Amino acid sequence: MDVHEGFVGVTAEQLSEAHDADLKIEAEEGVHFEKAWLDPESGKAFCLSTGPSKEAIMRVHERAGHPVTEVYEIASEV
Amino acid sequence: MDVHEGFVGVTAEQLSEAHDADLKIEAEEGVHFEKAWLDPESGKAFCLSTGPSKEAIMRVHERAGHPVTEVYEIASEV
Repeated sequence: MDVHEGFVGVTAEQLSEAHDADLKIEAEEGVHFEKAWLDPESGKAFCLSTGPSKEAIMRVHERAGHPVTEVYEIASEV
Repeated sequence: MDVHEGFVGVTAEQLSEAHDADLKIEAEEGVHFEKAWLDPESGKAFCLSTGPSKEAIMRVHERAGHPVTEVYEIASEV
């Protein structure tokens, strides 16, 4: 799970475009972005992905134009 | 989406118990907790829920024994 900041006022269409930019290149890093959730009021966005490492996930987001510093490795989910 | 801190070292079983505690009382607030993800290394947990307000979600979490201060209203998802 990674957390973006600064997405204040971002629309559903812009979120979709950003997600598509990830999907286009993610395979090169062995990453898959499954879901993304946006709160345009606080500017927070949350992305759920699978991949070989936090660094691989960060590289995809950076190359797609929306770098992130907060990435959490999920050990459990319910 | 709400974000907990301080769940360092929490196990999958403990996460499941915490989630069950929410599920037991959530209907009283019109809330439903759909998913929860845990990173026991950083102690962060993320919960995705639906409900009438942030306050209703916070009340369920508080009564279940794991209060939260960070709650984000999701306007868009992909």
